[in-house]
Amino acid sequence: MDTIKRVLLVGGTHGNELIGVHLIKMLIQFPKLAYRSSFETLTLLGNPKAIDVGTRYIDKDLNRCFNFQDIVQEHHGNDSYERQRALEICDEFGTKGRIPVDLIIDQHSTTSNAGIMLILDRLDAFTVGLVNFLSSINSEIKIYSSAKSGRKQDSLRSIAKRMICIEVGPIAHGTLQAELFQKTKTLVYEILNYVEQYNNGLILPEKQSLTFYQYIGVIDYPRNQVGELQAMIHPRRQFKDYEVMHPGDPIFLTFNGEIIRYQGCSDVYPIFINEAAYYEKGIAMLLTEKKTVEVG
Amino acid sequence: MDTIKRVLLVGGTHGNELIGVHLIKMLIQFPKLAYRSSFETLTLLGNPKAIDVGTRYIDKDLNRCFNFQDIVQEHHGNDSYERQRALEICDEFGTKGRIPVDLIIDQHSTTSNAGIMLILDRLDAFTVGLVNFLSSINSEIKIYSSAKSGRKQDSLRSIAKRMICIEVGPIAHGTLQAELFQKTKTLVYEILNYVEQYNNGLILPEKQSLTFYQYIGVIDYPRNQVGELQAMIHPRRQFKDYEVMHPGDPIFLTFNGEIIRYQGCSDVYPIFINEAAYYEKGIAMLLTEKKTVEVG
Repeated sequence: MDTIKRVLLVGGTHGNELIGVHLIKMLIQFPKLAYRSSFETLTLLGNPKAIDVGTRYIDKDLNRCFNFQDIVQEHHGNDSYERQRALEICDEFGTKGRIPVDLIIDQHSTTSNAGIMLILDRLDAFTVGLVNFLSSINSEIKIYSSAKSGRKQDSLRSIAKRMICIEVGPIAHGTLQAELFQKTKTLVYEILNYVEQYNNGLILPEKQSLTFYQYIGVIDYPRNQVGELQAMIHPRRQFKDYEVMHPGDPIFLTFNGEIIRYQGCSDVYPIFINEAAYYEKGIAMLLTEKKTVEVG
Repeated sequence: MDTIKRVLLVGGTHGNELIGVHLIKMLIQFPKLAYRSSFETLTLLGNPKAIDVGTRYIDKDLNRCFNFQDIVQEHHGNDSYERQRALEICDEFGTKGRIPVDLIIDQHSTTSNAGIMLILDRLDAFTVGLVNFLSSINSEIKIYSSAKSGRKQDSLRSIAKRMICIEVGPIAHGTLQAELFQKTKTLVYEILNYVEQYNNGLILPEKQSLTFYQYIGVIDYPRNQVGELQAMIHPRRQFKDYEVMHPGDPIFLTFNGEIIRYQGCSDVYPIFINEAAYYEKGIAMLLTEKKTVEVG
């Protein structure tokens, strides 16, 4: 069996997502909390400079900087802080790095009503087994599959063979919330416990069914010619992540009170509704479809 | 009677408080909405550079830059962008400015559960009459008196003879929320309507009683020697603005789960609990006492 020898816990990939930052700082202070006998647990504060100044990033989003081809091309020019940081992290923890890790758990938070979301980039047997176990002990967990988002392998977690991303919300960036902190901490411990069981051969391979929200597209806010917002998320859609949106449902409300309706031709399940950091990316929400598959 | 000839509506004094920003942009686009026959209504985006980049400020908090003595002293050195902007705004709208205004309505938002809060810097008869009128038509309104906070007259609104500050929350900075936007818009229209009635002599002077939350102090988060946070707002205190806190009540929770209790010796009413922008100011919450006074 392909055991997991080294796990990397990451927080502060975005410097103003304080739950991850302080969970990592706590585990640096009390490393026994993350100790498990069958593997080594390492910790990483993703973007220390952004953490110091309390912003998402300094020059650009670190979690879009891990595409190696881009890095090589850009290396001859003036690197941004985050590109340099991405290279450092790859050199340390990547598959060809100094101390390669077998699993990355990256912790994020969002202003959208994510609840407790696990983001899967691949639906391999290990990952599906893990999230099914976590869902079985915590019914609040929602699964989002980014596999078909067309996004390049540019995230921090993509440098490891196995990866999982935790998103919790709603929480304002730059703040902590004790309840979400506790839930994130519990979830991280449960993942570490599962890996321990996995390494000890206590997880039997079996056919499993998985229900998840699969990326199908994004919708931007209505904007004018110079890119200024013309509308907000409609009050009936705000905080309604994972809830079905039918064609014709209210989706935006203009500043002077006109309702804009969803123009799609089939039901969708929006997530990441009203995420602060996505305004500049041109994303008001991600659209997903709800799927169940058999894996194993 | 001392009529009000010119009102200045301000949003974006903090560039990432989007409700105020977009309310002002809407009123610039549709000036008739703010037109009233007995006075002139002007609009101002407080911190345009910070609005452009989506941050609270560029160099320093604009809403602490209007202390004239400080400005004179600093003027010989290198001015920050916000100090320069404060001078511009004073030169334009201040009592000795080019087009002095008689009333400033400054719109803010907060990650704390402020609901709809009006901040009064003075309890003069006009202001008390205004907020009593607003409270009578909207029971959600809470009044906070900053009069005894010891804060210098350094806010943008302090450059006018009369001023009122609107704070709405909870909302993540860098986001909009349609419901709070609508409530803020309605409130601004109601203030303009009241001023119209006041100018037309339809407001009769009378003895009035006012219930409000009066500043008595601040509490910072527990921190270590280098200033790092050691605890979060306790879950039972999070979002509980305006609710009484007794001596011994849970106030913070450390990252590894220890409860820290309020050490004061009398009941207080915390507000601005877990405001993102106050982490750097060393403020976990403001403490107030609830008071009722007769004015007029």
